[in-house]
Amino acid sequence: MQDLIYMDHNATTPVDNRVLEAMLPYFSEKYGNPSSIYRLAKECDLAKEKSREKVAGLIGAKPAEVFFTSCGTESDNLAIKGVCFANKERGNHIITSKIEHHAVLSTCKWLEKEGFEVSYIGVDKYGIVNLHELEKSITDKTILISIMYANNEVGTIEPIADIADIAKTRDIYFHTDAVQAVGKIPINIKDLEIDLLSLSAHKLYGPKGIGALYIKKGANIDPLLHGGHHERNKRAGTENVPGIVGLGVASEIASEDIEKSKEIKILRDKLEKGLLERIDDIKINGHPEKRLDGTLNLCIKYVEGESMLIHLDYNNIAASSGSACTSGSLEPSHVLTAMGISPEIAHGSLRFSLGKENTEEQVNKILETLPPIVEKLRAMSPLYPEG
Amino acid sequence: MQDLIYMDHNATTPVDNRVLEAMLPYFSEKYGNPSSIYRLAKECDLAKEKSREKVAGLIGAKPAEVFFTSCGTESDNLAIKGVCFANKERGNHIITSKIEHHAVLSTCKWLEKEGFEVSYIGVDKYGIVNLHELEKSITDKTILISIMYANNEVGTIEPIADIADIAKTRDIYFHTDAVQAVGKIPINIKDLEIDLLSLSAHKLYGPKGIGALYIKKGANIDPLLHGGHHERNKRAGTENVPGIVGLGVASEIASEDIEKSKEIKILRDKLEKGLLERIDDIKINGHPEKRLDGTLNLCIKYVEGESMLIHLDYNNIAASSGSACTSGSLEPSHVLTAMGISPEIAHGSLRFSLGKENTEEQVNKILETLPPIVEKLRAMSPLYPEG
Repeated sequence: MQDLIYMDHNATTPVDNRVLEAMLPYFSEKYGNPSSIYRLAKECDLAKEKSREKVAGLIGAKPAEVFFTSCGTESDNLAIKGVCFANKERGNHIITSKIEHHAVLSTCKWLEKEGFEVSYIGVDKYGIVNLHELEKSITDKTILISIMYANNEVGTIEPIADIADIAKTRDIYFHTDAVQAVGKIPINIKDLEIDLLSLSAHKLYGPKGIGALYIKKGANIDPLLHGGHHERNKRAGTENVPGIVGLGVASEIASEDIEKSKEIKILRDKLEKGLLERIDDIKINGHPEKRLDGTLNLCIKYVEGESMLIHLDYNNIAASSGSACTSGSLEPSHVLTAMGISPEIAHGSLRFSLGKENTEEQVNKILETLPPIVEKLRAMSPLYPEG
Repeated sequence: MQDLIYMDHNATTPVDNRVLEAMLPYFSEKYGNPSSIYRLAKECDLAKEKSREKVAGLIGAKPAEVFFTSCGTESDNLAIKGVCFANKERGNHIITSKIEHHAVLSTCKWLEKEGFEVSYIGVDKYGIVNLHELEKSITDKTILISIMYANNEVGTIEPIADIADIAKTRDIYFHTDAVQAVGKIPINIKDLEIDLLSLSAHKLYGPKGIGALYIKKGANIDPLLHGGHHERNKRAGTENVPGIVGLGVASEIASEDIEKSKEIKILRDKLEKGLLERIDDIKINGHPEKRLDGTLNLCIKYVEGESMLIHLDYNNIAASSGSACTSGSLEPSHVLTAMGISPEIAHGSLRFSLGKENTEEQVNKILETLPPIVEKLRAMSPLYPEG
């Protein structure tokens, strides 16, 4: 795709060439099953363990606390169902927020069917979880709190350290879906009372089909995939060696590149400021400061997000109207709704999520391209108050 | 690894170069999230659906009945837990066999903890499931029968059509773990009353980290991974597009190459005959005819399987002592034990599983190499009756 301006990094990222290069030998040459005992297999097993060290390094964990999964969604499912099934004699109550990813929300909904009770905590207008409500909702049946590290749609970063402390004090497991945070903001698990943390390779220039779950030593958690003794009995299934190697290298690169987020923020701020100057009736969503450096979510009144996206696509600009996982749905974003934004306005939401390969030139191109698109769409909109 | 003689294809296979080539563009160029709406993403979505058609083609299914997962183990877990959780008001009884893969057995064990009851059906000396016992074990609480298509350790092919008919007559879901069968023997799901069938890419020259579950239209099954609307709400998580593309091409090649199994059988038979001639006190495991063409499992008395493997590895020969998934375990194979083989003899088991790149020269090399290894090990064994 020539000259594509890709600004949907919260949906997925291109695989870094260094990552792909490291993966390549593990498809057709070093193809051993790590569970086998001959050298071809041992070499793959070693690569897997080296990769575990690299992933652990990115979040300050011990390698033995990193468990490979097939994606962020699996990590979330494993964490939540794993804790719930293993600890149900202790209680049946889960606390989460209204703005979680569907991997958390749908898992909780399913667990309600299985006899668990779930409190869905509200957020303020910036998307910050209400800590007072969270604390109040704790009962002696509460076994798990699951709150995302940073929101995928609006980029708001949650007060994870505070929530972790609350959970720790009450002896409740704390899981955080950090799929959008890992690789974008520095995370040192040693400083935080987190029991479980989900991450995904394809959000940090690694391949699709591989993720990981940090499980603190001693945490009592049932597997989600039962079978062989892989991943120290926490996740059965022949290990995706090329994917694991890819996640390792992507983690290494993410550690090195973490400072690049400053440059990304400069571009994002330029885009934000430029759009505010050029388009009327526009609202920035998410926290002004506590926000992922690359995320810009805005509502442009009197237009549909999807219509803007299609016009942007004609101009080789890839963006999103919220979460990729819910596109095709006619429902307004549950995140924006929880933040108090009306469905009509939420329908006009647009998300640009920037990555390290974006340039100032690309930002300028969007600043030139989007305002006339909005003008055109508004001219056709029955809702737009004629001036 | 120079001149490696790889005969562990039931553990995993090298990725076919054509498969890898087809996958490559989907890492760093066509990296879109299939759920997004711009062209970069739509192109990936299209590739995914083309791949679904190819996988469906391999087993004679409709594309809409193929659901991508991350591996055979996930497919098995999804099938079994999915049926059990969705149909528990109908009953809580599952029937499976004693020789299933651990992905099935451990899943059933876990479900027992969750209130389900499981009948583990025995097999005859060849590893064929006892149909009489199976029929007798059916109760009005039985909701699922799960029997593997072909056994991973000994290669025995089960009477799937008969079992499927029994299940159909009693209105019971039938799942088959066909991970070892797909790509090795022709399967046409249209001719069989199968509701769910698991397959895995890395057993058929595709990549690790991708599998599929055939789900017959209308089957009532809960998802295992909850989250976004991927895979028509049956399996959440951003799709592993390169992996899916790889599985598609691997399926296409497997369809074309299915006749090659005849050549593989000729080599396997030569190896079997040659070893029987050259080594005393040896026993072939599995059914003489109803067996995967590439699988040769044998017990060599008075020696340890692992010791032989290590010596074979020194000679650049990769084989296995049973299932890769249980290596490292000191337990004798549950499959051989169920077939009535004593633990002492089962400890001397060795599995060669041949693939399409194996040659007659390689078979000859093994026939030269293994007998002196056995002789040497037996000379050191206190169990070996001196002649």
